[in-house]
Amino acid sequence: MRYELYYWPEIQGRSEFVRLALEEAGADYVDVARRSGGMRSMLRLLNGSRVERPPFAPPFLRAGKLLIGQTANILFYLGGRHGLAPANEAGRLWTHQLQLTIADLVQEAHDTHHPIASSLYYEDQKKEAKRRAADFLENRVPKYLGYFEAVLARNGQGRHLVGRRLTYADLSLFQVVAGLRYAFPRAMERIEKKLPRVVSLHDRVAERPGIAAYLASKRRLPFSEQGIFRHYPELDP
Amino acid sequence: MRYELYYWPEIQGRSEFVRLALEEAGADYVDVARRSGGMRSMLRLLNGSRVERPPFAPPFLRAGKLLIGQTANILFYLGGRHGLAPANEAGRLWTHQLQLTIADLVQEAHDTHHPIASSLYYEDQKKEAKRRAADFLENRVPKYLGYFEAVLARNGQGRHLVGRRLTYADLSLFQVVAGLRYAFPRAMERIEKKLPRVVSLHDRVAERPGIAAYLASKRRLPFSEQGIFRHYPELDP
Repeated sequence: MRYELYYWPEIQGRSEFVRLALEEAGADYVDVARRSGGMRSMLRLLNGSRVERPPFAPPFLRAGKLLIGQTANILFYLGGRHGLAPANEAGRLWTHQLQLTIADLVQEAHDTHHPIASSLYYEDQKKEAKRRAADFLENRVPKYLGYFEAVLARNGQGRHLVGRRLTYADLSLFQVVAGLRYAFPRAMERIEKKLPRVVSLHDRVAERPGIAAYLASKRRLPFSEQGIFRHYPELDP
Repeated sequence: MRYELYYWPEIQGRSEFVRLALEEAGADYVDVARRSGGMRSMLRLLNGSRVERPPFAPPFLRAGKLLIGQTANILFYLGGRHGLAPANEAGRLWTHQLQLTIADLVQEAHDTHHPIASSLYYEDQKKEAKRRAADFLENRVPKYLGYFEAVLARNGQGRHLVGRRLTYADLSLFQVVAGLRYAFPRAMERIEKKLPRVVSLHDRVAERPGIAAYLASKRRLPFSEQGIFRHYPELDP
């Protein structure tokens, strides 16, 4: 089965978490909106009155007859199909729980540059962004990443978040660390000192053959100031 | 099996979505932190170094040997156990997708009064809250609730969000409407005019015997200015 992934064509955004899982799994997929005419297909599914179960927003994934929205939900589905989550119920729920906690962190990372409204430009909420980013870096990032550090420490040798094998939650934590480093290099240098296990997980994920090949390919879009993780030096003093 | 629900004892908060599902199911549960000594039990699970799979934050649910965190994840689990979601994979994923979209709306509702930082008082971010709430009521609530109106319209007779039976997503949409009415009565009066199906679903959920009995009981905490949905008149001009 060839998956169809739908997302805004020029940014990593939330689809990157899905893409990393598809790449690690070696799955056959097409990034629809990056193809000619693909945006039209995506908007038809988003707004079309004939779609029985319309997604609220990208990303969404077509998998045969299924049309699945919400990043964590897509990963829950893919995890079960491609060995990227444990097969037993307790392990599947725990992996999903970690993913939902990562999703909360991602939302907070987004809101550092858009604390007032997604509909406004960054420049129109820059003052508020400075206040929000300061709290995010002072309190929230250490709390979230400290939590994942503790989860790694409690899981045996600390090589993965869940059990003995890689899961989609590991891939997502890699992406969060990469994104936070891009957006807040100065703060992250400080924060990472207390996170040896998180940093090591990031590095090991980046070196996996499928992921390394993907990161070096044109399929990996660069981070930018259009995405979730944005580098505005004034927010990382 | 008696479930143990863990949440801050004085507010509905995110646990209310779990409580509604437990009440509708007629499940046996105890609200641990509302009992004498219960807060200590909760904090032990949150921060205890001996918990193998610690939750990041309340609410979490103990179900036999499982300790499940993240509201939508708990509902995913309960939905499968108590007939509050379809049994087939497509239906389970779709119900969960709707729940995750509701969770996004709930987070945005929270951020209307805390746009800068959860660690600061409302009074210290009131100016920003006014800007954020204005955008929320102008753009976000109509978009989210309009989406659920469309989902209801596309689902046959529009009596439920998914299929022909009540799911936990219906219960959660009820709670969101109730919360938004509490927080923003003036704006909601306006917005609801275009949402006949959403309003009707809210009313039918409130009249279900199990839910009606619960809402009339002391187990239902009142809305307040400590919770997610807060009524600050200046945010609802």
